[in-house]
Amino acid sequence: MREFVVLGHEAPTAADVSLEDLPGAGRLDVLCRCVTSALLLSHGVRPDSRIHLVLDDAVTITVDGAEVRRLNPDERSTGALLRGALEEREAAIGHQPVEPSPGVELRQVGLETTLDALLADATLAMLHPEGDAVVDVDPPTNPAFVLSDHRPFTDADRDVLGDHCDRRLSLGPEALHADQAITVAHNWLDTDGYRSY
Amino acid sequence: MREFVVLGHEAPTAADVSLEDLPGAGRLDVLCRCVTSALLLSHGVRPDSRIHLVLDDAVTITVDGAEVRRLNPDERSTGALLRGALEEREAAIGHQPVEPSPGVELRQVGLETTLDALLADATLAMLHPEGDAVVDVDPPTNPAFVLSDHRPFTDADRDVLGDHCDRRLSLGPEALHADQAITVAHNWLDTDGYRSY
Repeated sequence: MREFVVLGHEAPTAADVSLEDLPGAGRLDVLCRCVTSALLLSHGVRPDSRIHLVLDDAVTITVDGAEVRRLNPDERSTGALLRGALEEREAAIGHQPVEPSPGVELRQVGLETTLDALLADATLAMLHPEGDAVVDVDPPTNPAFVLSDHRPFTDADRDVLGDHCDRRLSLGPEALHADQAITVAHNWLDTDGYRSY
Repeated sequence: MREFVVLGHEAPTAADVSLEDLPGAGRLDVLCRCVTSALLLSHGVRPDSRIHLVLDDAVTITVDGAEVRRLNPDERSTGALLRGALEEREAAIGHQPVEPSPGVELRQVGLETTLDALLADATLAMLHPEGDAVVDVDPPTNPAFVLSDHRPFTDADRDVLGDHCDRRLSLGPEALHADQAITVAHNWLDTDGYRSY
């Protein structure tokens, strides 16, 4: 399994989102692109991949490649999927999720609880410019990559990440958008041991 | 310089494009994502990168990272940029371009003429599952990657590409979306010689 955790620092936690202005909705466009980068291949889904969007440290939406249906690569339809999940927020009580559509779960939890739940099975890795270059290291078996949206990690984020992340990894010398980083991380895992045909 | 050529097989060549339905506009959403993958970093532009969108083998829009202004990472605003270019199409005569906005040029030419113009300075590389794995080879100095949108290359495309492309390269074992492939190709070039900090 490959997991991605993306922190949406200004992301909406209610469904009053305009699909005509996803950037204006707390940069929901960034999170939409992260979902499709994490789960879609050309003409297919990655069934071994799951993404957790942590919205304003209050709500986490998980989308599971093995279960999700009708996920398209464009931002707008992915925005509609996330807005649909937010419409069901009130039905999520405590740590119990709601499942507004197949493969989509919403929980009323923030970063720390989301990472706690991953610790049992995954190796958590923070992407960091001074981390180990991925070209130098072998991929962990069940990696969970933690990324931030267009904002850097806050001090509070870093405190939580310091407690939870086993690894710091660098994908390269350039600072990428979160969705680009997800694509590169997938390719790193895809090409482990890959050589010419 | 890094160049990307993306074939939009069903892409619009006129400006009657709805920003509310970019997928319905000949999958213009794919081309929008390719533009941002080719030119944008986190909080910055790649000034050494240029992308050529070949629309229905009839019109080519070139966006240059060194010159483009107000390019945002979301699909909708990039769709508006491309639609604005198509509004100026009639002013492009023969092979002479129009420049509807800074860093954006439109020419009334198709794939063959677009590739002809690149041959002088670039090494043209076709992305192909049976090509040389990029993990095995050194990057060319001025690569120009040729990709297709959601459709495979047609026989006619392959004839032109066979005449123009020096290399066939494979980015990995999974078939990626065109924008994902651009991101991975950039990372391949970015990390050439890159090691841990």
